[in-house]
Amino acid sequence: MAEEVILLDFWPSPFGMRAKIALREKGVDFDLREEDLSNKSPLLLQTNPVHKKIPVLIHNGKPVCESLVIVQYIDETWGPESPLLPSDPHERARARFWADFMDKKISLGRVVRAPTEEAREAAKEENIQCLKMLEGELGDKAYFGGERFGYVDVSLIPIHSRFYALETLANFNIWEECPKLAAWAKRCMQRESVAKSLPDPHKVYDYMLARTKKLQVQ
Amino acid sequence: MAEEVILLDFWPSPFGMRAKIALREKGVDFDLREEDLSNKSPLLLQTNPVHKKIPVLIHNGKPVCESLVIVQYIDETWGPESPLLPSDPHERARARFWADFMDKKISLGRVVRAPTEEAREAAKEENIQCLKMLEGELGDKAYFGGERFGYVDVSLIPIHSRFYALETLANFNIWEECPKLAAWAKRCMQRESVAKSLPDPHKVYDYMLARTKKLQVQ
Repeated sequence: MAEEVILLDFWPSPFGMRAKIALREKGVDFDLREEDLSNKSPLLLQTNPVHKKIPVLIHNGKPVCESLVIVQYIDETWGPESPLLPSDPHERARARFWADFMDKKISLGRVVRAPTEEAREAAKEENIQCLKMLEGELGDKAYFGGERFGYVDVSLIPIHSRFYALETLANFNIWEECPKLAAWAKRCMQRESVAKSLPDPHKVYDYMLARTKKLQVQ
Repeated sequence: MAEEVILLDFWPSPFGMRAKIALREKGVDFDLREEDLSNKSPLLLQTNPVHKKIPVLIHNGKPVCESLVIVQYIDETWGPESPLLPSDPHERARARFWADFMDKKISLGRVVRAPTEEAREAAKEENIQCLKMLEGELGDKAYFGGERFGYVDVSLIPIHSRFYALETLANFNIWEECPKLAAWAKRCMQRESVAKSLPDPHKVYDYMLARTKKLQVQ
């Protein structure tokens, strides 16, 4: 039976990027469907009735929601010969811990959207502290799990698509603050799965600028 | 080699309860160490330098932090004959989705700590809506995963220890709002692993009352 794999996505979403990278790492063909978030499709509302958010992965009619849950599902379903999560339970726990940390602590959008200069500096400082912790975890390894690109890399690398916007809109230069993380991001970008899944940084800049202006008007 | 399993805990924490239930479900002997959160131990600060929070599981010297990461670690490390997570990838994703949902959406503490009557009613309403979604997922099954007590049950049942305090302090009767969830909680409480891991509801009431008063003074 031919597999049907659909991904409901919205191109600037770092969460959607995670799902696309994981699918491409595993060599899974999928039908990418762009959502209009101001007019969500009946399929999105029906497959993610709880959060009504992208990304949603629909595999042979069965939906999976929440990006980290999706990446783990992809890892458990396809390509066991190239796992994203390590096999050792303690290393797996460590990878899950850092992915969870990102979702709880990193919010680059807050830097751009900060209503005052003071709030912006505070949001910048908080993000830098958290990125430095991630840099400490990376250390001198090629990837977070060691020599192989894996779960933590998939989960974090989408931020690369926002670096240009952050530097231009908020004078936030990640390359200066976290040089090891910057070298890691460059390394990840050389992978086809990543390069193909991250949008043009200039397009992300335009999107973030328009979004910030819209919020200011509101 | 004898195993060394230490759990750093604070008795009213629902997150600590998850770890205790999972360890007891798997029949793991562990050294339970109560933390004084106003004077955290060097071991806590050293094993969870990022969040500095309990619970921390330390297995043969290696720490694991964050309750859902800990429960998955326990499941992958001990007792493969009695798994907490289902074996089917889609069912696993579903279980992870609902555990994540709880952590994002359920906050019973907010009901008790609400500064005004209006804020309390709003917090109550939000929690009820989320608990009703969980009840919908439970449906007529004995446990969230079907006939077997598992990951979602471990993650959610700690709220049972707060029902008495909620009813007394905030007139929030979960049994009336969600009868199926109430029957499920009663079923879970019959398990030794759960009964032994949840504190006396009256003690939790005293703790929540004292904490609320302290916050009001501040």
